[in-house]
Amino acid sequence: MSDEPRPLLVDRTPFPDGIDERLRAQLTFLVEIDQLKTILRQSPLVAAERRENDAEHSWHLAMMVTVLAEYADEPIDTGHTVQLVLLHDLVEIYAGDTPLYDTAAGVDQEAREAAAAGELFGLLPKEQALRMRELWDEFEARRTPEARFAKAMDRLQPLLLNWMAQGGTWRTPGVTADDVRARKAVIGDASAALWEAGRRLIDEGERRGWSRKGGGQS
Amino acid sequence: MSDEPRPLLVDRTPFPDGIDERLRAQLTFLVEIDQLKTILRQSPLVAAERRENDAEHSWHLAMMVTVLAEYADEPIDTGHTVQLVLLHDLVEIYAGDTPLYDTAAGVDQEAREAAAAGELFGLLPKEQALRMRELWDEFEARRTPEARFAKAMDRLQPLLLNWMAQGGTWRTPGVTADDVRARKAVIGDASAALWEAGRRLIDEGERRGWSRKGGGQS
Repeated sequence: MSDEPRPLLVDRTPFPDGIDERLRAQLTFLVEIDQLKTILRQSPLVAAERRENDAEHSWHLAMMVTVLAEYADEPIDTGHTVQLVLLHDLVEIYAGDTPLYDTAAGVDQEAREAAAAGELFGLLPKEQALRMRELWDEFEARRTPEARFAKAMDRLQPLLLNWMAQGGTWRTPGVTADDVRARKAVIGDASAALWEAGRRLIDEGERRGWSRKGGGQS
Repeated sequence: MSDEPRPLLVDRTPFPDGIDERLRAQLTFLVEIDQLKTILRQSPLVAAERRENDAEHSWHLAMMVTVLAEYADEPIDTGHTVQLVLLHDLVEIYAGDTPLYDTAAGVDQEAREAAAAGELFGLLPKEQALRMRELWDEFEARRTPEARFAKAMDRLQPLLLNWMAQGGTWRTPGVTADDVRARKAVIGDASAALWEAGRRLIDEGERRGWSRKGGGQS
């Protein structure tokens, strides 16, 4: 990072006087995260001919947590899990999206995203910044049942979109059905039932030629 | 409504055999709501030159609840309020968006949206359908502190976007700053502090000529 302060969205139309410092910081953050709506993922929408963005994806994950929480193998706090998925991609505002099957971009992903988290959450009042950082660290570490379930939703949702698209990113050059199974297996760390369903979609997709044949079936 | 069953998104690529009926119903619902990402609102994004869609909007409201809950005048359960905002616009998938300043479209809005809720939530297993309907009814009735705060976010978020756009939908033909103040006043039912800030943005926008002058200041 350079020493130049990054320009913020709110600088384009600064808030008027008379809004107190704490609320001003919070609104500045809430305007800044509008950028999540412009970060494109690889996954195709079901309902339109375009790629999904991170904000839409995050909303979809939150709905999935709400509807599918019953399949968690360990008890989870649904509200807490929703919090994790709502903010899990925010760091991409400054660090960019790293496609699941792009191993080169994955190399320095962790460092880039940690720096981005510090900068973005740092717009908030201190204790809120700390709280957001804790939630994001929890998601990344996957050491709580909630974080594991949040991660499972993050992998299951594009799997659903790819199924509906009859391939989608399964058709990424060089990717085989075995690669897909390997990347998606973390679903099973949170829910055996959902991983069974997910694997069924991957296997059937492979059978129909929507992904390249892997060396062996899982 | 006609007697023809509405085609579902999932019909385009039906799930394979071997996924049990309950999970199949839940996944069908989760695919169907992909359509929320295609329903355009009037509000312009801050971060790009296009209008916002309902899924992005719902995600943004959930983040606002998380960050601004402390300003609620009555104690609120943040997780419950997040649930309300995540699903508050789902009925628009079948009922369409009704712009805030379109009084003609507002006439049969309630009946259209209630029918849509029955149909959409009805895709879910019965007790989940009932639960979603209860949450949506709660949001609409605004009789709980959580519903009032959720509604306040629903009105404050486009106000922020309009401020950033130096007008946005405040420039809708026939709309004056007084109309804006009247439509936004429900923010004050949940939070005096946020309504004070919101009114400051509206007043300052009017002063700068980003909205038509109203007959009198609030």
